[in-house]
Amino acid sequence: MLDFPGTPGTLTAFVLRILQCVFAAGSVASMATAVGFYNFTAFCYVIASMGLQVTWSFMLALLDAYALLRKKMLHNPILVSLFVVGDWVTATLSLAAASASGGVAVLFFSNLGHCSFGDECRKFQISVVLAFLSWITIAISALIMLWILAAG
Amino acid sequence: MLDFPGTPGTLTAFVLRILQCVFAAGSVASMATAVGFYNFTAFCYVIASMGLQVTWSFMLALLDAYALLRKKMLHNPILVSLFVVGDWVTATLSLAAASASGGVAVLFFSNLGHCSFGDECRKFQISVVLAFLSWITIAISALIMLWILAAG
Repeated sequence: MLDFPGTPGTLTAFVLRILQCVFAAGSVASMATAVGFYNFTAFCYVIASMGLQVTWSFMLALLDAYALLRKKMLHNPILVSLFVVGDWVTATLSLAAASASGGVAVLFFSNLGHCSFGDECRKFQISVVLAFLSWITIAISALIMLWILAAG
Repeated sequence: MLDFPGTPGTLTAFVLRILQCVFAAGSVASMATAVGFYNFTAFCYVIASMGLQVTWSFMLALLDAYALLRKKMLHNPILVSLFVVGDWVTATLSLAAASASGGVAVLFFSNLGHCSFGDECRKFQISVVLAFLSWITIAISALIMLWILAAG
């Protein structure tokens, strides 16, 4: 299998996983501390999706760290197939969650002229931005995984 | 390059492109005929994104039809790279647009208890569903394109 920065077991892959975790955890924290988020399906969906993202990315970060320390390669085709499926599912869910909550946030801030939830408005915005950042990092990982699987 | 159903110039690819066009055009038609859609950024975004999708998919459908009639292969790596970029850009925009408008539609229908735009509500819903169907078909095309490019 191909070996370039970003493939499983490399430092780039580990950094990408950590960034995914940090952005997704930040998004969950920002949304979960906003009072009244549970009244909006899109905001609950962001918490669920980013929660799944944190779990998945943290597991893979541990695996990358283990491979780095033991200087092992993680280029088993079955393992990479599993990474591809997990990455694509979480990446799709993350983009959908970020966009759905982004749509609702834009509705509050632009279309209705103002956001009437006080201090919580800022938290909604931060959560959406962090969810998009998390999606960008997971999308990079997902593309690399699919590429190395297809290239064999 | 690999040759299996769904690769450029095959009947499956042509059918996928036509489906993308039909779903995206239906989504635009349903949203554009709903009075007051322009008050919502997410709904305007669906029209823009699905408009781009129709244009892109129609161009590729014509190319597939030409390849089918002339029995030519479209497996030039430069051409496939172009298809990959176009497919991924439109697929990402389509999912984001479908999710953003889906988030707003769910807000109207579930979170606010009812939709207060009368007959237009049904059109918003139909447009969102068609946008998601269009995304599913473009996602299949995009995955196939990336796969044949990576597999060489």
